Amino acid sequence: MSLIVQKYGGTSVGTADRIKAVAKRIVETKEQGHDVIVVVSAMGKTTDQLISLAKQITEYPNPREMDMLLSTGEQISISLLAMALHDLGQKATSLTGAQIGLLTDNVHTKAKIVGMKPDKIIQLLEQGHIIIVAGFQGMTPDFDVTTLGRGGSDTSAVAVASILKAERCVIYTDVDGIYTADPRYVPKARKLKMISYGEMLELASLGAKVMSSRSIEFGKKYGVPIVVRSSFNDEDGTVITEEGERMEDVVVTGVALDKDEAKITIQQVSDQPGIAARIFRVLADEGINIDMIVQNISDKGLTDVSFTTPVAELKKAISVSEKIVKDIGASRVVSNDKIAKLSVIGAGMRSHPGVAADMFEALAEEKINIEMITTSEIRISCVISEEDAERAARAVHTKFKLDREG
Amino acid sequence: MSLIVQKYGGTSVGTADRIKAVAKRIVETKEQGHDVIVVVSAMGKTTDQLISLAKQITEYPNPREMDMLLSTGEQISISLLAMALHDLGQKATSLTGAQIGLLTDNVHTKAKIVGMKPDKIIQLLEQGHIIIVAGFQGMTPDFDVTTLGRGGSDTSAVAVASILKAERCVIYTDVDGIYTADPRYVPKARKLKMISYGEMLELASLGAKVMSSRSIEFGKKYGVPIVVRSSFNDEDGTVITEEGERMEDVVVTGVALDKDEAKITIQQVSDQPGIAARIFRVLADEGINIDMIVQNISDKGLTDVSFTTPVAELKKAISVSEKIVKDIGASRVVSNDKIAKLSVIGAGMRSHPGVAADMFEALAEEKINIEMITTSEIRISCVISEEDAERAARAVHTKFKLDREG
Repeated sequence: MSLIVQKYGGTSVGTADRIKAVAKRIVETKEQGHDVIVVVSAMGKTTDQLISLAKQITEYPNPREMDMLLSTGEQISISLLAMALHDLGQKATSLTGAQIGLLTDNVHTKAKIVGMKPDKIIQLLEQGHIIIVAGFQGMTPDFDVTTLGRGGSDTSAVAVASILKAERCVIYTDVDGIYTADPRYVPKARKLKMISYGEMLELASLGAKVMSSRSIEFGKKYGVPIVVRSSFNDEDGTVITEEGERMEDVVVTGVALDKDEAKITIQQVSDQPGIAARIFRVLADEGINIDMIVQNISDKGLTDVSFTTPVAELKKAISVSEKIVKDIGASRVVSNDKIAKLSVIGAGMRSHPGVAADMFEALAEEKINIEMITTSEIRISCVISEEDAERAARAVHTKFKLDREG
Repeated sequence: MSLIVQKYGGTSVGTADRIKAVAKRIVETKEQGHDVIVVVSAMGKTTDQLISLAKQITEYPNPREMDMLLSTGEQISISLLAMALHDLGQKATSLTGAQIGLLTDNVHTKAKIVGMKPDKIIQLLEQGHIIIVAGFQGMTPDFDVTTLGRGGSDTSAVAVASILKAERCVIYTDVDGIYTADPRYVPKARKLKMISYGEMLELASLGAKVMSSRSIEFGKKYGVPIVVRSSFNDEDGTVITEEGERMEDVVVTGVALDKDEAKITIQQVSDQPGIAARIFRVLADEGINIDMIVQNISDKGLTDVSFTTPVAELKKAISVSEKIVKDIGASRVVSNDKIAKLSVIGAGMRSHPGVAADMFEALAEEKINIEMITTSEIRISCVISEEDAERAARAVHTKFKLDREG
């Protein structure tokens, strides 16, 4: 019998009525003749409430105890969902992360999965049970409770699907799939039927919050197709899977826009070996995340070094950069948080030259200036002015023939 | 180093501020040079809220899933208390029932403890940690979560204290000890310095809700002294311990009043062998709890059989009794829920004859009629009219010289 893993997020199980609706959906899948494992997040705002409780006790909660606390959120939702399934006449058993033997390292609040002992799940599946698993949580080899950090329930779901060789892992969420662009500012964005793991990973790293990178990496490593679809309707979602031949015909799969970055430039840096290393070593030691880096052509032995960093880290990054300016004898630091990073993603780029040129042309036609450029094998990103960003996204979306028809 | 087990109830950890206050109290004990294990209940009304959540899903929640749900209540309070202890600079680790290896049978929602694997606790104690244990919960040998039913956290605490041979188990609660009578209707009631396990067991079975019978039985079996005291002040509490010589000088330790029973009489029962067995077999098969039974002297081959049952079961008991009347050819059923059971308890009764006579005299002096009488080795109980009950309790309390002086 084929095994389906389903994952329901916090909104999908936010109230007793929604839990009952989810139970009905699970029974439909079971009655189609599948074995079903369901991975569930904490109900609605439960996790936030638990965090606020901890903050009433102490400003700096101990991470091990935080995991002990937060893991109760999923334990509540799995037990309620199992009760709802019993009420529909099903055999169902809820299991915590520890009970499914999901082993992690001991980095509390952002633990990494290292293995799983699925004996109990397999035994219960053989007895015809629907298994309800607490997402987001695991345990160390010492039986300490751990949590997996942001997007942890997705990671749990894909990990369980991978290890048990599920036919697919269906992520039920509050959007109905992956789009060619964000429909909020690209009204002609289309829902994708398929996207490759690699493309989805690029999207995730560009701020598409539908799924975490770690869960996609798991799916890619074990070759488990991941379906993203809505828990509120019956529309087909998007399948994240291996690159197929057909997919290569599509040069660009989607357009992404990230407005949460800022640009810093250190001006008049002495252009000599080792200077870049000194700058970025200091920034790294201070824990500042750097995304794009550009060094201008040298003019009279001096150059400008620009980089982007999340807006949230801008203040600290400027302060560190000003220290660097003194240390290396540069002239000054300038920053700009009114920028946006526009990216096109497509596995087909590998076999189609000229994608960058097409993108730059689309921007030129709109008279939009490009401040920085980076590329990967399947992605091209340009930093542009934030005020041009949405117009630029629509132009590029049209240029690569991604617009919805009709 | 001597080991102290402390247990805090739901009221004591009902808010973040109370949890911080409990943490300070624990640190005081630790700093007196003791190893400390703390057993905690769920915060305030958490358990009620979880039950109400389950009732929104289904009228008849699956017991295994109910245990999965309810056990989160204690998991929340232990993690918060551990955080509060960290904040005071202490090494502290919270552990669930499963993590302390508290093995139970698999009777969900009222599981019985069958053993414990204390390796992890012992290891952490040796490393100087304060251990915070989730009360009320354990696990089956199959790693399923179980809960221990009413008074379960007390049972957890005394079980842990027993198995780890603690010096004492201190139950912090919202009363400051065990009294010679309920001070609400016996204003001269005194707090007892000591009471024996046997006497406390009688009190618990008579409706004194301070501690559950199971926890006292545990303490008695393993000889662990149990201290009952308030978590809101520093007054000495009451020690529940072995009977000492000194204790035998006290003939009566306390007076208890139970108003939650009702009396049923089946009238004009044919007085022949096997009739009583038939009556009480049927009542037992219907699951009705019977406390006292009295059969009157036979008059012309007919007798009356009276028994008491909890008021909550009265309606069902009457209906079953009416069927019995038909089956055995008795005349009719009469009932009275305006009764009370007044008891005196004292280990000293064994060596002091005349206690019953003293009690009956005290009631006679108050012109109070006795409807039924039962006795055990260390208890005498009389059923009287509910309207006389509190006056009777005061009279008996005075008769046995239990009144507070001054």
